[in-house]
Amino acid sequence: MYEDRIRLATLMDKVMTADRAAALFSDGMTVGMSGFTRAGDAKALPLALVERARQAPLHLTLLTGASLGNDSDGLMANAGVVARRMPFQADAALRRKINTGEVMFIDQHLSETAEQLRSGDLKAVDIAVIEAVAITEDGSIIPTMSVGNTASFAQQAAQVIIEINLAAPLALEGFHDIYVPHARPEREPIPLTSPLQRIGATAIAIDPARIAAIVITDSADSPSNALPPDTETDAIARHVVAFLEGEVAAGRMGPQLLPLQAGIGTIANAVLHGLSASSFRDMTMYSEVLQDSAIALLDSGHLAVASASSITLSAATHERFIANLEQYRDRIVLRPQEISNHPEIVRRLGIIALNTALEFDIYGNVNSTHVGGTHMMNGIGGSGDFARNGQLSIFVSKSVAKDGAISSVVPFAAHVDHTEHDVDVLVTEWGLADLRGLAPRERAPLIIEQCAHPDYRPQLRAYVEQALAGGGQTPHVLEQALAWHARYKREGTMLVK
Amino acid sequence: MYEDRIRLATLMDKVMTADRAAALFSDGMTVGMSGFTRAGDAKALPLALVERARQAPLHLTLLTGASLGNDSDGLMANAGVVARRMPFQADAALRRKINTGEVMFIDQHLSETAEQLRSGDLKAVDIAVIEAVAITEDGSIIPTMSVGNTASFAQQAAQVIIEINLAAPLALEGFHDIYVPHARPEREPIPLTSPLQRIGATAIAIDPARIAAIVITDSADSPSNALPPDTETDAIARHVVAFLEGEVAAGRMGPQLLPLQAGIGTIANAVLHGLSASSFRDMTMYSEVLQDSAIALLDSGHLAVASASSITLSAATHERFIANLEQYRDRIVLRPQEISNHPEIVRRLGIIALNTALEFDIYGNVNSTHVGGTHMMNGIGGSGDFARNGQLSIFVSKSVAKDGAISSVVPFAAHVDHTEHDVDVLVTEWGLADLRGLAPRERAPLIIEQCAHPDYRPQLRAYVEQALAGGGQTPHVLEQALAWHARYKREGTMLVK
Ligand SMILES: CC(C)(COP(=O)(O)OP(=O)(O)OC[C@H]1O[C@@H](n2cnc3c(N)ncnc32)[C@H](O)[C@@H]1OP(=O)(O)O)[C@@H](O)C(=O)NCCC(=O)NCCS
Ligand SMILES: CC(C)(COP(=O)(O)OP(=O)(O)OC[C@H]1O[C@@H](n2cnc3c(N)ncnc32)[C@H](O)[C@@H]1OP(=O)(O)O)[C@@H](O)C(=O)NCCC(=O)NCCS
Repeated sequence: MYEDRIRLATLMDKVMTADRAAALFSDGMTVGMSGFTRAGDAKALPLALVERARQAPLHLTLLTGASLGNDSDGLMANAGVVARRMPFQADAALRRKINTGEVMFIDQHLSETAEQLRSGDLKAVDIAVIEAVAITEDGSIIPTMSVGNTASFAQQAAQVIIEINLAAPLALEGFHDIYVPHARPEREPIPLTSPLQRIGATAIAIDPARIAAIVITDSADSPSNALPPDTETDAIARHVVAFLEGEVAAGRMGPQLLPLQAGIGTIANAVLHGLSASSFRDMTMYSEVLQDSAIALLDSGHLAVASASSITLSAATHERFIANLEQYRDRIVLRPQEISNHPEIVRRLGIIALNTALEFDIYGNVNSTHVGGTHMMNGIGGSGDFARNGQLSIFVSKSVAKDGAISSVVPFAAHVDHTEHDVDVLVTEWGLADLRGLAPRERAPLIIEQCAHPDYRPQLRAYVEQALAGGGQTPHVLEQALAWHARYKREGTMLVK
Repeated sequence: MYEDRIRLATLMDKVMTADRAAALFSDGMTVGMSGFTRAGDAKALPLALVERARQAPLHLTLLTGASLGNDSDGLMANAGVVARRMPFQADAALRRKINTGEVMFIDQHLSETAEQLRSGDLKAVDIAVIEAVAITEDGSIIPTMSVGNTASFAQQAAQVIIEINLAAPLALEGFHDIYVPHARPEREPIPLTSPLQRIGATAIAIDPARIAAIVITDSADSPSNALPPDTETDAIARHVVAFLEGEVAAGRMGPQLLPLQAGIGTIANAVLHGLSASSFRDMTMYSEVLQDSAIALLDSGHLAVASASSITLSAATHERFIANLEQYRDRIVLRPQEISNHPEIVRRLGIIALNTALEFDIYGNVNSTHVGGTHMMNGIGGSGDFARNGQLSIFVSKSVAKDGAISSVVPFAAHVDHTEHDVDVLVTEWGLADLRGLAPRERAPLIIEQCAHPDYRPQLRAYVEQALAGGGQTPHVLEQALAWHARYKREGTMLVK
């Protein structure tokens, strides 16, 4: 059995139950798991670790690509297995533990984790847990629906546990392109110059002697939890399309645009869907995650090719995708997140970065992560990798949250993830502010009149007027700067009544 | 005359006075001038433009490499010549005009200006004004003590004015390495893999037909205004050296370290001086600016080679440097700032970035630019290019300013230029906080106990205690977060009495 999945015969005797594999872990270890925005995560070991923690103390530092599916992040957090977590998560239960301080969360640029492991800035990974389609004749690992940090974990870990997922079709072989930069100082240029280009191997090469266990699973990735487009996201999408049409008309890019990146979540997915109503053809994506919208654009021909580190789909789109894999074989590449998000490549290709803000301020500083300035939502993810280094950095948001009680346009971002230097364009359902070449004093009226909800515009205008009296490159009334957030906490709304 | 300086004979009839060249300018133009941290700036045209503005309205958008010398920035600002300025400045008079809102200042990452010009995100340069050592036989321009954005300005401008500075020795020829990335989407990898490597030409190639005027000058660059090291900067330097020795001892880098970048100003210069008391040998620099400290380290052999975009020296060091140019010829390269600061190269080489903060907060967010959160000091310069993409990002600062009335360690940075994701190490004269792999809640006590002035530690501890009660990944008391800055404005000190 499994001969097509475990092609190196000497590894057959490593097959064991997840419970037995879980015995390899001990308290205090650093563990690297596959999984990136619910795609390609290990399915069995997280549950086995939860079980094991019932018998003996087990507090781990857990690294992944990004968020896990199957409630694994929450189950492990609730069982006390996760003492320290990086670089990203998106789970309600884990989020609670982070915000109470029970779990130490290190929120990182997704391109940087592998680099920090390589340079020794982070503690080395003891055990890697990797979901695979198969193990090849020479012991190389073929990942499933994401690559994430898997290649780096596998190269570095003392022991590697592989979960062969029978639900992942063998035909996924060939979708991956595994390239891992050399340690410094002998680093060469990364040779990639176009989104679909292959620069590495189709599997992760490791010494098979380090494969300590193989566990067989048979269950699908958790479906995407992005919500469908709505009136506001449709409006945001229209503004973005009109803006990009203007860029083409001005001759700043061709009708195939420059390679697109689109962030996670409902809004970015909806905006990308909006491109199907555009006249652009043969676009390319060089992104982190492909959501339903990317598959739809590939199907409609708007998108020619797409590169990412993971594919996270709704159940229906997943089924269609898997059933028609051959249609996508020459049009999709999955890469390590270090490469999908690499500053070198993002800058070279001139990515159009499209990410979602929780809030932004009147000068263009963006908060992507901290609700109310203090509480972690998900993490910065790759938004900084793309926003800093791409050709265009667009941030989208609905103008209000919580039925209008929160304005996403505020006087002063209560937490800054992206500074005004890294934000070219801001968009809400009301309109679009093109900030390129503008000083902060010029940005403020544009952002207020184009992007803020009309209910909040008078308050914002009043703030600016008061701030201008104090002067400066970036005028503020420090006593009032964070008063909106404080008011929401106190009175349940940012609106002055 | 000037045959050795103007080697293309047909250009001889372009020689004219600065006043005549100034007649080429008209109101509303965009002008790109050479000059980077007081080095290699055009000396005559700024004065001629001030003169011209007396006769007719002249409001320009002025782009440079970085700050100009010879009070040019201030003189032009006071004359109303500068309506819009980017990407950096460091002049007291211009700073005043920026902070009153009379000059629109666009504060940019220094690697990005050329990219934005190339992609059309900024209005094209009408006239380039470039200081040169000489013009070659084929009309190429040999820059003087800086390259900055000069190559991009010269390539793009409709008209080019060259100031041949007779005070700049002909022997500077050969120090420059001019490489300009191709427009997208046909961008190739930048082939540079080590700091001294030459990848371009020694002069800026342009079509000589676009050379509209040649002006002859004969005056030196303004000397650096960095102050000498003092007790605090010595202490900061000792902490940095001890930290780097620890990195070598831990095997994370060899005794020659990784290539160093050091920011502008007094403190960074002093820290670099401190490396002369270290055991490191054959270090390399891949930086923006070389100050006196870099020359001293080259002389002492601590530094093997140095790459930068400009050389800004005190009068004494400048004299010594010019008198001994041949000693430095094979050890120094001057590049366009797009290349000296390029994310691709900074990441590939794994730069150790050493920049100065005005203030930082208890979670590691850094303010490099805005005094009191509102008033522009100089600009972000290249600090973000290096801090984001390098291997190690170190920020240094004195723990207090204004005789102790201002704490540089605050609860909440009143302006954020560098987010906690981009800050690995913080240093003041009191000590060093190594933040790698730590969550915000772990960072706060470390930063307070290692870096804050003892007078301010009780206040900071009290803030953290109160903030923790509210929970979160990054606990804050929003009502109090900016109260320190407001108190300083009101009472003249951040200290609670
Ligand atoms: C910002 C982010 C949370 C938005 O997610 P989304 O699904 O597109 O957007 P939604 O409008 O559904 O907002 C998500 C939640 O944030 C809330 N929210 C939005 N703006 C808010 C604000 N200013 N203050 C408080 N809460 C806010 C919404 O109410 C919603 O809450 P709910 O889940 O309780 O309904 C998400 O994009 C993210 O985590 N981004 C950071 C990482 C990133 O950008 N990665 C990109 C590369 S992968
Ligand atoms: C931050 C920066 C201004 C420090 O300059 P420096 O010469 O090394 O440091 P100094 O301690 O002399 O400080 C300069 C001034 O800032 C003041 N200052 C320092 N900390 C301050 C604070 N927290 N609040 C207000 N003022 C402060 C000092 O009092 C001093 O004022 P003075 O000129 O009136 O005496 C300078 O490094 C800078 O502009 N950095 C941003 C750009 C950059 O990092 N470039 C690096 C790549 S080029």
